Amino acid sequence: MMDEFLSTLAAIVGRDYLLVDGAETAPYLNDWRGRYRGAARAVVRPADTAQVAAVLAACHAAAVPVVPQGGNTGLCGGATPLPDGRSVLLSLSRLNRVRALDPDNNTLCVEAGCKLSAVQAAAHEAGRLFPLSLASEGSCEIGGNLSTNAGGVQVLRYGNMRDLVLGLEVVLPDGQVWDGLRGLRKDNTGYDLKHLFVGAEGTLGVITAATLKLFPAPQARATAWVAVPDPAAAVALLAHMRGGCGDRITAFEIVGRPALDLVLQHIEGARDPLPGSAPWAVLVELSDTLPDAALEDMFERELGAAIEKGLVLDAAVAGSLAQAEALWALRENISEAQRLEGVSIKHDIAVPVSRIPAFLSAAGSRLRAVWPDVRIVAFGHIGDGNLHYNLSKAAAEENASFIARTEEANRVVHDLVAELGGSISAEHGLGQLKREEIRRYKSELELLLMRKIKSALDPAGLMNPGKLL
Amino acid sequence: MMDEFLSTLAAIVGRDYLLVDGAETAPYLNDWRGRYRGAARAVVRPADTAQVAAVLAACHAAAVPVVPQGGNTGLCGGATPLPDGRSVLLSLSRLNRVRALDPDNNTLCVEAGCKLSAVQAAAHEAGRLFPLSLASEGSCEIGGNLSTNAGGVQVLRYGNMRDLVLGLEVVLPDGQVWDGLRGLRKDNTGYDLKHLFVGAEGTLGVITAATLKLFPAPQARATAWVAVPDPAAAVALLAHMRGGCGDRITAFEIVGRPALDLVLQHIEGARDPLPGSAPWAVLVELSDTLPDAALEDMFERELGAAIEKGLVLDAAVAGSLAQAEALWALRENISEAQRLEGVSIKHDIAVPVSRIPAFLSAAGSRLRAVWPDVRIVAFGHIGDGNLHYNLSKAAAEENASFIARTEEANRVVHDLVAELGGSISAEHGLGQLKREEIRRYKSELELLLMRKIKSALDPAGLMNPGKLL
Repeated sequence: MMDEFLSTLAAIVGRDYLLVDGAETAPYLNDWRGRYRGAARAVVRPADTAQVAAVLAACHAAAVPVVPQGGNTGLCGGATPLPDGRSVLLSLSRLNRVRALDPDNNTLCVEAGCKLSAVQAAAHEAGRLFPLSLASEGSCEIGGNLSTNAGGVQVLRYGNMRDLVLGLEVVLPDGQVWDGLRGLRKDNTGYDLKHLFVGAEGTLGVITAATLKLFPAPQARATAWVAVPDPAAAVALLAHMRGGCGDRITAFEIVGRPALDLVLQHIEGARDPLPGSAPWAVLVELSDTLPDAALEDMFERELGAAIEKGLVLDAAVAGSLAQAEALWALRENISEAQRLEGVSIKHDIAVPVSRIPAFLSAAGSRLRAVWPDVRIVAFGHIGDGNLHYNLSKAAAEENASFIARTEEANRVVHDLVAELGGSISAEHGLGQLKREEIRRYKSELELLLMRKIKSALDPAGLMNPGKLL
Repeated sequence: MMDEFLSTLAAIVGRDYLLVDGAETAPYLNDWRGRYRGAARAVVRPADTAQVAAVLAACHAAAVPVVPQGGNTGLCGGATPLPDGRSVLLSLSRLNRVRALDPDNNTLCVEAGCKLSAVQAAAHEAGRLFPLSLASEGSCEIGGNLSTNAGGVQVLRYGNMRDLVLGLEVVLPDGQVWDGLRGLRKDNTGYDLKHLFVGAEGTLGVITAATLKLFPAPQARATAWVAVPDPAAAVALLAHMRGGCGDRITAFEIVGRPALDLVLQHIEGARDPLPGSAPWAVLVELSDTLPDAALEDMFERELGAAIEKGLVLDAAVAGSLAQAEALWALRENISEAQRLEGVSIKHDIAVPVSRIPAFLSAAGSRLRAVWPDVRIVAFGHIGDGNLHYNLSKAAAEENASFIARTEEANRVVHDLVAELGGSISAEHGLGQLKREEIRRYKSELELLLMRKIKSALDPAGLMNPGKLL
């Protein structure tokens, strides 16, 4: 049985695309990690921008909140409705068309429901690169990537999602459609509105399409696993490599020994590329748009010099694509290995690259002072100053008592991050998870400015309530 | 004699830094091109952010508008007060300190009054590159570059000012100071506020400092002057060069024959690198962060192949730094040559790169249909889709009757730009010059969104009235 409001929505999207049955709606109403369980009036699955606009207009008229959702791969509950069940869950997944590709202008216009892997494939077919690359790229959708300003492993060279978008089409909270899809690299005709919606986590409007930048496709890649004595050496190695390789550095990921050990322990086929006990390793990737770029030679030369400088203990350069993939698999499987190990307390922090060593040193000592047997599993995008700084419990500890110390751990880690001029959410956004926590670390003035923007664009407060702000 | 309000300002900045005398204030109250003549209550020259904040607070309390100004090199009157004389002209030029440089984090924190050339020099001294490069770099200030989202000749490789900034310090209209100077490449903790102020042309607040990105310094450069048969060949050449040179392409500027002829005629020492009558030329620059990059060889190979494909008629690769500078001088002197030739009607437009040939063809035929002897001087950043499309009068025509056709010319050129999905102000902003014109080409909804932002951040409407909106 449907009330009048739901009948209105069914008339817009078609009865088949309005879900109310619990078994059908469950995948949309719970987050990927199983941490947030939400409820909604219904799940609607519009086919195109016009239907999205009509749905938002109807919700606006009825004062019903709207929760936009893409691939539902987010890590902060930003796409899960609150348990009050008042909202409509708006799935963008059916808006999955590639609208246009312009090779000479190096732009690709896609709808928000396109999977990131599909966007990458469309670029590849045209001989170009769309460089956003995340673990979840087979499931996440570009609208979600935009709404969370996704990062990933190639930010070092290509930037975040924010740096990869030229224009947006957005349905505003009242159902009006803003067409800002211009694919221009130079356009100084007023305020840059798209940057409000990028990273807004669905709280200002619904992104329905985007014009993305394309890049020349790399023709050569080389990958190396490099053992370093400490994080300061890793930071110095990055500067050293920049001097010798310049723009060719595409990825620079640090892996702490505890993180590597978890992978070696839990992931079948995983092998340590440099058997030994080096406390830290760095996964480095170079790429070049020229095929004859001699990147392996460049590695030999630069890493050899780094060894002589004492920055590097040992290094292994991948000699084949299979070897390179095996190295990347070590990095990519850390999250899974940590999951198999048991519960963990996760942090996604950023500090200036120059302060990474100070962060790791101080975080370790401050945590151990109050928690002597905590296991620190640190890894991540050190080249961007972004670490995934996760805590695993000691084997004997109980899950509940471990998780109960989450706030205590956050206080230590996040206070330190703030002291060092960093961010408590480098990549994953605020969602539900960190919207309270951020208030400790943002100035009142900055929070006020955000609320003013929210009031200006969503005066009725219907967009994704309980998230971000 | 000073009224109470001006006495308040004098107490903040010091009497010496409050200017009221006409001879002293004139350089601030008139724009660089002599097109706009303004008037103000006073010109104030604060020393630091605290003084800027106090000045804005005082102006806010007295409901006096404020016009921020950097190097006063803008081209749209955006930094010139209106003739009503109600505003205070706020010069940022004394805020010229380099606050911090972090080589490992590749960031540089500077105050808004630093000249762009000083910012470039600070980066250079640290072995890095700050890539923003404009003709006015010896005079313009980084605060103005930020407020206008300046572009320049290296946008093709490094992006606009917007792509080069990580954080801002902004004094809000009521005098509160927002410290958003975090130098992080990854920070997803709410709305990205800095992008509101970048390109806002001083209408939302006063930028007082910025954290800028630094890049590896190029170690090798090569420059070539390339004769092409038509704009379509130039666009195809860019795609060809991208395939063969990838990221190394740093600049790609088109110069029409009439533009080149003006330089050869008016600028002493200027010589045609490829004597002949090719209708178009492209100035191409490659650079690499490795010193042994063999860029001249790359040019020979790629341009040779382009000649065989029929894209290129002839090419000259600079064999020395002096030769390269001579080639760049041809491009950089076009504006001066056009000024010496006489009055002109200027357009700063962008279309998708793929539509540049269609724009040039249609603009030429539509203009000549109503103005048979108009002289079209087209040149610019074709790699970004941005052309300076200027009209010079026929020798015999009178200045006044020529200039009187400005609106007619705008209508033809701007309507065409809109048809092609472009922008009527690619680089220079709206200021006073284009704030009315833009209303023909932006949707009502987009203008409404901009007014909502303005109302939210500057409810009293005191920031730079009569500009942009």
